[in-house]
Amino acid sequence: MSEALRIGIAGLGTVGSAVVRLFVEKAEMLIRQCRCPLQIVAVSARHRRRERNINLDSFIWYDNPEELAASADINVFIELIGGESGSAYRAVKLALEAGRHVVTANKALLAHHGVELAQLAESKGLLLNFEAAVAGGIPVIKILRESLSGSKTSRVYGILNGTCNYILTQMEEKELSFQECLKNAQDLGYAEADPSFDIEGNDTAHKLALLTSLAFGTVISLDNIYVEGIRNISLVDIRTADELGCRIKLLGVAVKTNTGIEQRVHPIMVPTSSAIAQVKGVTNAVAIETDLLGELFLSGAGAGGNATASAVIADIADIAKSHPGFQHGPVFGIPANTLKPYTKSKTRAHTGGYFIRLSVQDRIGTFSSLTKRMAENDISLESIVQRPAAETQTMHESKTVVLITHQTTEATLRKALTAITQDGNLIDKAQMIRIERYC
Amino acid sequence: MSEALRIGIAGLGTVGSAVVRLFVEKAEMLIRQCRCPLQIVAVSARHRRRERNINLDSFIWYDNPEELAASADINVFIELIGGESGSAYRAVKLALEAGRHVVTANKALLAHHGVELAQLAESKGLLLNFEAAVAGGIPVIKILRESLSGSKTSRVYGILNGTCNYILTQMEEKELSFQECLKNAQDLGYAEADPSFDIEGNDTAHKLALLTSLAFGTVISLDNIYVEGIRNISLVDIRTADELGCRIKLLGVAVKTNTGIEQRVHPIMVPTSSAIAQVKGVTNAVAIETDLLGELFLSGAGAGGNATASAVIADIADIAKSHPGFQHGPVFGIPANTLKPYTKSKTRAHTGGYFIRLSVQDRIGTFSSLTKRMAENDISLESIVQRPAAETQTMHESKTVVLITHQTTEATLRKALTAITQDGNLIDKAQMIRIERYC
Repeated sequence: MSEALRIGIAGLGTVGSAVVRLFVEKAEMLIRQCRCPLQIVAVSARHRRRERNINLDSFIWYDNPEELAASADINVFIELIGGESGSAYRAVKLALEAGRHVVTANKALLAHHGVELAQLAESKGLLLNFEAAVAGGIPVIKILRESLSGSKTSRVYGILNGTCNYILTQMEEKELSFQECLKNAQDLGYAEADPSFDIEGNDTAHKLALLTSLAFGTVISLDNIYVEGIRNISLVDIRTADELGCRIKLLGVAVKTNTGIEQRVHPIMVPTSSAIAQVKGVTNAVAIETDLLGELFLSGAGAGGNATASAVIADIADIAKSHPGFQHGPVFGIPANTLKPYTKSKTRAHTGGYFIRLSVQDRIGTFSSLTKRMAENDISLESIVQRPAAETQTMHESKTVVLITHQTTEATLRKALTAITQDGNLIDKAQMIRIERYC
Repeated sequence: MSEALRIGIAGLGTVGSAVVRLFVEKAEMLIRQCRCPLQIVAVSARHRRRERNINLDSFIWYDNPEELAASADINVFIELIGGESGSAYRAVKLALEAGRHVVTANKALLAHHGVELAQLAESKGLLLNFEAAVAGGIPVIKILRESLSGSKTSRVYGILNGTCNYILTQMEEKELSFQECLKNAQDLGYAEADPSFDIEGNDTAHKLALLTSLAFGTVISLDNIYVEGIRNISLVDIRTADELGCRIKLLGVAVKTNTGIEQRVHPIMVPTSSAIAQVKGVTNAVAIETDLLGELFLSGAGAGGNATASAVIADIADIAKSHPGFQHGPVFGIPANTLKPYTKSKTRAHTGGYFIRLSVQDRIGTFSSLTKRMAENDISLESIVQRPAAETQTMHESKTVVLITHQTTEATLRKALTAITQDGNLIDKAQMIRIERYC
C-alpha cells in the first residue's frame, strides 16, 4: 500500500497470539519482501490479562473489537474472533465501512455473509483476504482466485477437517473404535470438548461453501450442501475398506453436473493408492479438477496456530504489496455482484459404487432375500461378503454382510435399502458409504 | 494495469499456439476476472505458414521476435521461443528496456540470466512472470513468492521432469527396460528425439535452480547443482526398490544445511507410502518444507500445451490486475539486488541410507570381503541380499548383491566402494541410489 501498514488484531487465541509472536520474529523478513513498513499497533481480546506468552505492552488495547475495527489508529483489521455473526460480523463490517482492509480466518462468517462483505469491500476498493479460513496453510484461496484464471473447474474436493481425518487415521492405524479415537483427539487438543461441529461435517461444509464459490463463480449457499459426518463409521467399515483396497475419508465435494452444482460432505471410500488416501492425521488436502490442468492436488497443514498464522501473514503481505487507490482483485475471483446464483444439482442424483454393511439375522434365506431386492432395483453387485459379527454384537445369531455395488444412483439404492429394511432381516440400521474412483 | 493489455507473443510452438487458442476461447472469462480489456495484437514465429490450427489473421505479424519485443504495438511481451540465450534472451531484454511487462516459460533463460533480467524489470517497475517455467500447471512460483511470506524454507524438492517420471513409472508398472520405456515415451511425444537434456537431469536442474532462489532468497547458481540422470537405472533396481517398500524417482532437492545450501538432482528411493511416490507418469510434484507449515505438497500437470498455457494466462491475468505506476512485487520474492550469494554445501556431505547394487564374481569369500570393507569404513548394513543375476548377465559365475546401508555420508560410502572395486570382485560398475526418508 506504500503507506505504512498499521495493523489491528481482534482475537488473541491460539491463532491471534501466533500472529503477534511471528510478526515480531519475522518483521525484518516481511519488510524486505513487502518493501513497506508494517507493524501491529493495536489489539483487542476478551481478557486483557490472560497468559499468552507474548508481550502486548507496545500495542494500544481495545476492550471492544468493534471500536478497534473503526479506529483511526489502524488501516488493516485482522479478525480472529470467530463465529458466524455477533461481534466478528459487526467488527468486519465496521472496518470495511471505515475504509480498512480486512484479513479474516473466519469460515463461518464468510460462509454466511461472504457475498455481502465482499460487495462492501469491492465497493470501497478494499481487500478482504481469507486464506486462513480454508485448509489453514494450504494456499488454496489464492490458487483458485489467481492461478486458474484461464481454466474452468469441473470438481473441487478435499479433506478439510483435521479432527475428522485424525480420528479416521487413528481408527485405521491403531485399530481403535471411533469413541476411543475421539477421546485421544480431545486429549491432544485436536478436538473440542463438544466435537459435534467437526465430526458432524459442519466445519467441512463451511469451507466447502467458500471453495465452491471461488471454483464456480457462484454465490455462497451453505443450505445447498448435503452433510453427513463420521460418527457412525465403525472399525468394521475401516477394516472392510482396507480389504477392498480403500480408505474411508471425510471429503467435501463440489462438482458441476448436468443439472447444476452438487455439494456434499460425507465419508467416502477412496482407493488406497490415490493421493488423497495418503493424507494422514490432521493434515488437510484439496484437489481441483479443471479443463486445462486435469487434477491439481495440494496437501499440507490444515490447522494449528503457526499454519493458520502463516496464512494470515501472507494475506497481510498481499495488502502491503498492493497500492493505494488501486482497484483490487475481487474477493471471490470475480466481482461479488456478478457471482451467479446456481441450481442445486438434483438430490440423490449422485451415481457411483456403494459399500453397504448390514447386520442381519443369521437364518436361511437372508442372502437370497438381500440379493433379490438388489436385483429388483437393477443394482448389480461387485461382491457380497459375509463377515464375522461386529465386535459389538454378541448374539451369535447375527452376522455382518457387506455388499459392494457397481455404479448406481443413490435414489435407487435407497429404494432397495428401504425394501430390505421392511423385509425385517436387519437388526441394525444399514451402513452406506459411497465409493468414489476419481481420486 | 487499467489501460488495455496489448499482448505480443513470440514463439508459436505447442505452448504458444495453445495460448492463442485459449485466449480466444476464454476472452470473456478473462475480462470478467481482470476487469480490464486484454487482447493479443501481434505474434512472431520462425515460419509464418506452418499449420497450427489457429487463425493468425487478426494479429500483426513479425518475422523478428526482437522487433516485436520493442514494438509500440504491445505493452506485454510473451516469450515462448526457448533457449538460454540468443533470440529469447535478446528479445526479453529489449522488451524490458522498452517498458513492456514480460511473461516467459523459459527455465533455461532464467536459470542463466534470471537475476540480471529481474534487476532490469524491477528497476523499470515491470513484472517478469514465469509461472510456466517450473512444473507447468502447478502454481509453485506464486506460492513461493507470495504465500509463504512469514515462513522460512528448510527444504524444497520435487519431481520436475515428466519425461523421466513417465519412464520410471512405465519401468515399474510394465516391467520394461529403460530403453524400451524411453522409446515408448518418444513414440508418445513425451521425450525428444535427443532425450539427453531430460534424462540426464539437466531440465530438472534448471527448474531446481529457480526454486532454490525463490525458496532461500539466494542468487541463481546452476553450477552449484550436482546432477545425475536416470540412464543407468535398471529393472533390477526398480524391482529391488519395490521389495524394500520403495519407488525410485528422479528428484531435484535443495536443502539448507549447516554448511550452506545443497542442491542435487539424482534418482532417489522414496517410501512407497509417501505422497511423492504416488506421483505417476508425466505428472510433476513439488514439496516445500517450512518452519511454520511443515510440508506443503503440490502435484499436477507438469507439461503439455494446455497446462503450460494455463500458467502463462494466469501470469498475464496478474499483469492485467496490476496497476500503472505501481511498484510491483519482486520477481524472485525479494528485490533481485538483495538476493544473497550462498555457500554451496560441502560436496558429498549428504547423509542417509544407500542402496548399493553390485555384480560380483560368484566365488567363496566375496560376501565376507564386501562386508569387511563396509565395516572398515564404519558403515552399518541394514540388509545384504543376494539376487539372481541381472537379466542382462548370462555368465552363471556372476551374481547380484544388494546392500542397504544405515545412515552414512556419501564420502565414506564412496571410499568403501573404491576399496571394493580395487579388491577386484566387481564385474560391473557399482550402482548407488540414495534412500531418503523425509518424503
